[in-house]
Amino acid sequence: MVREDGRADDELRPITFTRGFQTHPAGSVLVEFGGTKVLCAASVTRGVPRWRKGSGLGWLTAEYAMLPSATHERSDRESVKGRVGGRTHEISRLIGRSLRACVDLSALGENTIAVDCDVLQADGGTRTAAITGAYVALADAVTYLRRAGALSDPQPLSCQIAAVSVGVVGGRVRLDLPYEEDSRAEVDMNIVATDVGTLVEVQGTAEGATYSRSTLDAMLDSALAGIKTLTDLQRVALAQPYPKDLEAKL
Amino acid sequence: MVREDGRADDELRPITFTRGFQTHPAGSVLVEFGGTKVLCAASVTRGVPRWRKGSGLGWLTAEYAMLPSATHERSDRESVKGRVGGRTHEISRLIGRSLRACVDLSALGENTIAVDCDVLQADGGTRTAAITGAYVALADAVTYLRRAGALSDPQPLSCQIAAVSVGVVGGRVRLDLPYEEDSRAEVDMNIVATDVGTLVEVQGTAEGATYSRSTLDAMLDSALAGIKTLTDLQRVALAQPYPKDLEAKL
Amino acid sequence: MVREDGRADDELRPITFTRGFQTHPAGSVLVEFGGTKVLCAASVTRGVPRWRKGSGLGWLTAEYAMLPSATHERSDRESVKGRVGGRTHEISRLIGRSLRACVDLSALGENTIAVDCDVLQADGGTRTAAITGAYVALADAVTYLRRAGALSDPQPLSCQIAAVSVGVVGGRVRLDLPYEEDSRAEVDMNIVATDVGTLVEVQGTAEGATYSRSTLDAMLDSALAGIKTLTDLQRVALAQPYPKDLEAKL
Amino acid sequence: MVREDGRADDELRPITFTRGFQTHPAGSVLVEFGGTKVLCAASVTRGVPRWRKGSGLGWLTAEYAMLPSATHERSDRESVKGRVGGRTHEISRLIGRSLRACVDLSALGENTIAVDCDVLQADGGTRTAAITGAYVALADAVTYLRRAGALSDPQPLSCQIAAVSVGVVGGRVRLDLPYEEDSRAEVDMNIVATDVGTLVEVQGTAEGATYSRSTLDAMLDSALAGIKTLTDLQRVALAQPYPKDLEAKL
Amino acid sequence: MVREDGRADDELRPITFTRGFQTHPAGSVLVEFGGTKVLCAASVTRGVPRWRKGSGLGWLTAEYAMLPSATHERSDRESVKGRVGGRTHEISRLIGRSLRACVDLSALGENTIAVDCDVLQADGGTRTAAITGAYVALADAVTYLRRAGALSDPQPLSCQIAAVSVGVVGGRVRLDLPYEEDSRAEVDMNIVATDVGTLVEVQGTAEGATYSRSTLDAMLDSALAGIKTLTDLQRVALAQPYPKDLEAKL
Amino acid sequence: MVREDGRADDELRPITFTRGFQTHPAGSVLVEFGGTKVLCAASVTRGVPRWRKGSGLGWLTAEYAMLPSATHERSDRESVKGRVGGRTHEISRLIGRSLRACVDLSALGENTIAVDCDVLQADGGTRTAAITGAYVALADAVTYLRRAGALSDPQPLSCQIAAVSVGVVGGRVRLDLPYEEDSRAEVDMNIVATDVGTLVEVQGTAEGATYSRSTLDAMLDSALAGIKTLTDLQRVALAQPYPKDLEAKL
Repeated sequence: MVREDGRADDELRPITFTRGFQTHPAGSVLVEFGGTKVLCAASVTRGVPRWRKGSGLGWLTAEYAMLPSATHERSDRESVKGRVGGRTHEISRLIGRSLRACVDLSALGENTIAVDCDVLQADGGTRTAAITGAYVALADAVTYLRRAGALSDPQPLSCQIAAVSVGVVGGRVRLDLPYEEDSRAEVDMNIVATDVGTLVEVQGTAEGATYSRSTLDAMLDSALAGIKTLTDLQRVALAQPYPKDLEAKL
Repeated sequence: MVREDGRADDELRPITFTRGFQTHPAGSVLVEFGGTKVLCAASVTRGVPRWRKGSGLGWLTAEYAMLPSATHERSDRESVKGRVGGRTHEISRLIGRSLRACVDLSALGENTIAVDCDVLQADGGTRTAAITGAYVALADAVTYLRRAGALSDPQPLSCQIAAVSVGVVGGRVRLDLPYEEDSRAEVDMNIVATDVGTLVEVQGTAEGATYSRSTLDAMLDSALAGIKTLTDLQRVALAQPYPKDLEAKL
Repeated sequence: MVREDGRADDELRPITFTRGFQTHPAGSVLVEFGGTKVLCAASVTRGVPRWRKGSGLGWLTAEYAMLPSATHERSDRESVKGRVGGRTHEISRLIGRSLRACVDLSALGENTIAVDCDVLQADGGTRTAAITGAYVALADAVTYLRRAGALSDPQPLSCQIAAVSVGVVGGRVRLDLPYEEDSRAEVDMNIVATDVGTLVEVQGTAEGATYSRSTLDAMLDSALAGIKTLTDLQRVALAQPYPKDLEAKL
Repeated sequence: MVREDGRADDELRPITFTRGFQTHPAGSVLVEFGGTKVLCAASVTRGVPRWRKGSGLGWLTAEYAMLPSATHERSDRESVKGRVGGRTHEISRLIGRSLRACVDLSALGENTIAVDCDVLQADGGTRTAAITGAYVALADAVTYLRRAGALSDPQPLSCQIAAVSVGVVGGRVRLDLPYEEDSRAEVDMNIVATDVGTLVEVQGTAEGATYSRSTLDAMLDSALAGIKTLTDLQRVALAQPYPKDLEAKL
Repeated sequence: MVREDGRADDELRPITFTRGFQTHPAGSVLVEFGGTKVLCAASVTRGVPRWRKGSGLGWLTAEYAMLPSATHERSDRESVKGRVGGRTHEISRLIGRSLRACVDLSALGENTIAVDCDVLQADGGTRTAAITGAYVALADAVTYLRRAGALSDPQPLSCQIAAVSVGVVGGRVRLDLPYEEDSRAEVDMNIVATDVGTLVEVQGTAEGATYSRSTLDAMLDSALAGIKTLTDLQRVALAQPYPKDLEAKL
Repeated sequence: MVREDGRADDELRPITFTRGFQTHPAGSVLVEFGGTKVLCAASVTRGVPRWRKGSGLGWLTAEYAMLPSATHERSDRESVKGRVGGRTHEISRLIGRSLRACVDLSALGENTIAVDCDVLQADGGTRTAAITGAYVALADAVTYLRRAGALSDPQPLSCQIAAVSVGVVGGRVRLDLPYEEDSRAEVDMNIVATDVGTLVEVQGTAEGATYSRSTLDAMLDSALAGIKTLTDLQRVALAQPYPKDLEAKL
């Protein structure tokens, strides 16, 4: 009773992190969850938004977007439409909120980290891949800030953050849904959690149906196990040296 | 150890539904959760969006908005800013998704129900009040359609839908947070569920902290009990006669 | 030869003012001209727009809008369309101009009063109801400012302002047109005037026809009599105590 | 006690109409009221807006705009700002409404006349000059349609339309205010009327003051006398032959 | 083998410059290349954009636009569409870049010259006429600044700038294409150059075909000869006295 | 006298084409000109824009964009700003025009090829890399259409298209400028040409200076030699098999 791609119900797709994918941002990671590929960049700039000036606190924002060519059928470009769609806004806000849960903003000083998650190829789970990859880019940006002497506390990250999707497909709880499963799931859930198993964000949506409390519990079990694996893989990726020369940008 | 407004931790604020608040929409309900007041209107129009034409299915959309004067400090008007904010988009999508979970769209024929939730006064929990009130307005719009002979199935609503917020404030799990509690909550959760206790949507967000699985369970227990009460109150409100004359709009 | 709703040609619809309708704004009035219901809020904020800074003068702005559910057929939401329509702009400007005619802006200090007129239900004459209700909300906001010690002159209001529509329907001059009359009027006029009978704004439009000077005179007579009554009713409403506790917002 | 430019209180500025200013539109008139210069074009296109299709009626729209270089201090370009301002909207609507008062739309067939009034130089009274010039351009467009055999009735214009400003400046009622007077007027009024003295539109605004009924009457007297002269001048201008070859555009 | 309008292949259309066309801008020139008429205004304002403040350098910007009535078929107004089209942007940038090539911005002090090129009538070559006329308006604005004592160097213009179109039509290289030729040209080129024959901008586009190096050379020869004539005509026009009184705007 | 990166003046940077970079578009190529990396996708959709329907002709459009993280300093996202900038528009139009020069649109049938050029990393010459890579993606899309039996003529591409930048830096004509040279070039030129040496587009801009005809000639010589090499490299890349399975999308 295996899945179309041969996985067990509680198995992640092949996961890779390519650090240093781009030259310019302090952190740049191409994350792949199977066919889903998201380019996560963490750019550091001096200063904070106007409403935060003089607070002594740093800031972290996130923007999510999809290349028109990333989807099965080409999608319209939001810059050309002249407005950012509801789904894009919603995911951008989710990524920012999730990452801020692990950062001590007072340790950053009045600097801003802008996280950009641009989906190069979409095959389900783009938001969870984005969060998981963005944590790695963020960790690299923090290394950059530390080496530049810009941190007031050397370790502003209190934990690791990763995310995964889980759903009910054909009555079975399945982890890390590709597009083919996602599009026919009865329930669709995204979980953001830490490496120590605490929760950051839980979003579970029934698609034209409702689900029981016990199904929710089974989905949470599966997701938290998956996130344990993802944070292990993040640690392995980050065990390699910081991929950039320290340029004097700050 | 009571709350500032005298409630127990698991107690809802005073809840009222005023049906027939407006003359024109088929369903119009002013819902109040304490100081939070939301005007929920369900307007019926012939036809469906272009992408749905010829499907034989109806459609339900929702839009959420806040009057500038609804908040403690006046907020800017989104029409004047020229764009709908991310939070507004996100809540509009949530309301639409939640209500569609209880409607058999094939029973509506090719008609559209447009649900408008306009916050007249905000004191925390506007989105959950909006969903809870919108269900009642939707039920009235369905009555309208039924009397107009426009339904292919006389009962397109498979269950009731209600929503409530729950959070952790000062380490305690509390139900139905007013603004004063919401603004200092460590965890903030919105649950949408049915009158039979199944889940439609679960959204739980840590605010600068993370939370354990057992806290999640305690919040779900509290919310589901609250939703049981809300659906009872909806039933009481809907036991009164349909508040409008049937005008021949359809 | 009475009108469809039983009124004489020179008779106003039932008029009510509900002060203190909302908690947050310094002045908040629900005004009703028959089936037309407009929520008028006057919010006070410190400071003035950039171009006015350092002048020692206050400022008053107004914004008018209509809930999508306020009209007989649901209308599109301007925030979603991404632009404010011409009619909305025009009425917002009219309300602001009319109210500024009675305020001594130098007495306000560098504070801004933002007046929001949101139509909850439309049945003709929404702009004139808005102006008439907004004056009452403005008077409450001035009371608020006076008690907060923020005025340099205790009475910045030099007169009362009210407005009414008048038109020619079926050849007869009629006061305060409901939608049913407004939509078939040959001439449509809106008059803004003071409690002492002087004029603030006169706007008279022929709809596909033209009108004589003597018709204009008859319409002015009728409107000024109506405005006399409206300012009397404003005075009665304002004779009640200020409906709010003074919170230290300023 | 003459005015700064030497005129009597009830005297118009020098008025000129240059027909055929542009090659492409069916009617194109440069109108000058002293230093105010407005290019009025009436373009004819087959068909009507979607909401009017199949009605057998024609349509007339108008758009007003100001070149950035037309004003004393350069003003921002509305296309670059990305939105049309409230004043622009208001005047565009006024021009369209005023011209529609003299056109029998059923005589036009399902054709649209688009009137563009672009202010090349502003010195007060741009909207009244625009209406007065636009009537002449409209008359030329009607001639064009008549010669093209596109009219169902050979004379769709029931009267002439002209407009003038009048105001109270330094306590005196003055006709056709230039910028220098307009900017310090206590009351500012725009009147649109016909060649037979009936009214189309009356808009009178007090600027920080109010005005009496008798002042209104004096302003109306002055304006109607001015409009009589303007319609005489329109007739003189239109007595010249139609300035274009009839190209087969329709 | 002459052209439809009787010109030789290397002959310009009749060229006129009307200086002082408008009263308000420091430089205002109506330029005509045959039926193409562009109103070029150079407005002077104190100060520079924010990103340039404190640099001691002036700035020059340009905006190009077309009246809706300028084209054969009426075109939509960009302010109403709410966005500036790609072609408009491109030409605005070209005009600004071309004029900045002849201005020593350090000689202007921290003042801005805003150049507006508004096409009153379009018959091919609007961008080249705009550049050629804008230079003359710019020269007048510089005279204005010099007389106002606002220049740190009395001659900030290092050369004259003019532009012309050239193309291949029916296999023949032709100068200064009117619309009728432009619309069927195989190659379309715009050249901006100085009075001493050096190049500022070369833009050559094949329309559905490609062209050889030798054709490019022939087009450059023709264009540079045309620009020589245009700069001679500019000099003649500028030999007349500055058409304005010096008002104390600066 | 070599360049900072060790190249001779007339030497291209290392050029690579990675075909099949993405799964979904019919053609997807990552092109690299040294540190400049552009993802070029050619997506095929049935049908053509409305204005082209029934013509029997296909269509090709192009959109260019830059990831915020692609530049040395993070740039703002155009979708968030709500408008596409002038430079972006200009380059999108250039790419579309350049590619259409080699496509026989009648051979495509009523199908549209949408070319997206998204810059993943910017180091000068992004538009020329985009055109050069887009040709390869286009060739793959044409192969896709041919195999799908959708072409009326098996070879709709009449030639190859490539582009390169050339400039004058420190008085020397240099080919294929990286950012470091581009930012200090006196003249900046982009040439689009074919594999047989004919020109498609020539755009040469002086930056604050002007340039002589002989400099133009030297730049053209260098660019055409570079384009010869680029089209050879395209041919080598396209000699590999088509990288995709033919899915039945059409």
